[in-house]
Amino acid sequence: MDLDKLIRNVPDFPQKGIMFKDITTLLSDAEGFAYAIDKMEERYRDKKIDKIIGIESRGFIFGAPLAYKLGCGFIPVRKPGKLPYESIKEDYSLEYGKNTLEIHIDALREGERVVIIDDLLATGGTAKAAANLITRLKGDIVSIDFLVELEFLNGRDKLKGYSVHSYLKY
Amino acid sequence: MDLDKLIRNVPDFPQKGIMFKDITTLLSDAEGFAYAIDKMEERYRDKKIDKIIGIESRGFIFGAPLAYKLGCGFIPVRKPGKLPYESIKEDYSLEYGKNTLEIHIDALREGERVVIIDDLLATGGTAKAAANLITRLKGDIVSIDFLVELEFLNGRDKLKGYSVHSYLKY
Repeated sequence: MDLDKLIRNVPDFPQKGIMFKDITTLLSDAEGFAYAIDKMEERYRDKKIDKIIGIESRGFIFGAPLAYKLGCGFIPVRKPGKLPYESIKEDYSLEYGKNTLEIHIDALREGERVVIIDDLLATGGTAKAAANLITRLKGDIVSIDFLVELEFLNGRDKLKGYSVHSYLKY
Repeated sequence: MDLDKLIRNVPDFPQKGIMFKDITTLLSDAEGFAYAIDKMEERYRDKKIDKIIGIESRGFIFGAPLAYKLGCGFIPVRKPGKLPYESIKEDYSLEYGKNTLEIHIDALREGERVVIIDDLLATGGTAKAAANLITRLKGDIVSIDFLVELEFLNGRDKLKGYSVHSYLKY
């Protein structure tokens, strides 16, 4: 199946000059959505994954079904102030300003094997912050996976040393 | 399985005097998470559901696996400014101030049968706004479902006329 055909190009979002890759058209297509999750699950079926880490909030849409299908737990990495229990945080830079991600301090046990999931690899800052959180909790990052990778933004440079996989490249 | 045992009570979040029902401990438990999704799927397996509607962002964590398992499409209802394509919006009141939800104008075809999913039914304002969006798109709301319902907040009163279901009541 050609997932690319299910992605909608929206010009000038979130700002002028950017061609946004809209995944909602893929999500609403039952076969396309199932195909995307199945491809992710095939990749990790026999890899003894303990937890899937989903980055808020589109990472939840792929990470949660993947965790369900693999039969493992799901851990949300969230924006500031959303997690109710004691958390650790990582700041990261955006093109303009900065942002923060958080994870509960007891989200992982030492050595648990995890895959980090997000919808899009752009500059890699968000994924690097998530990876730092997992490392601080002594989790074992098997891979960091994205549905879509914008190769011209060189996000992989920021994720050197990690296995990085994407299912659609532009 | 007693899902209640997997929910963590966090006192004084998000503000003093509130006992927060933390679902992250359920999500991280592989058997508990799978059980919750399986119960939702059993309920709708033969109900010819076209789309699952997930409310940002914890609604994504249950709605997306449910859509995957049922073999139907997933539609995100999002906070303002997140959806890239043309959208409609509904404002709703919170205890202090107000908030807004949005959906893409082409998210549904007329008459499509949908289930709206969120993690928590509190006062019902968020779910009512989501239901209004679906109605404006001429979708057929089969039910509005929540993992957890805080009965003492009477959220069902705001959702009169709809089928409402929850899997855990407090």
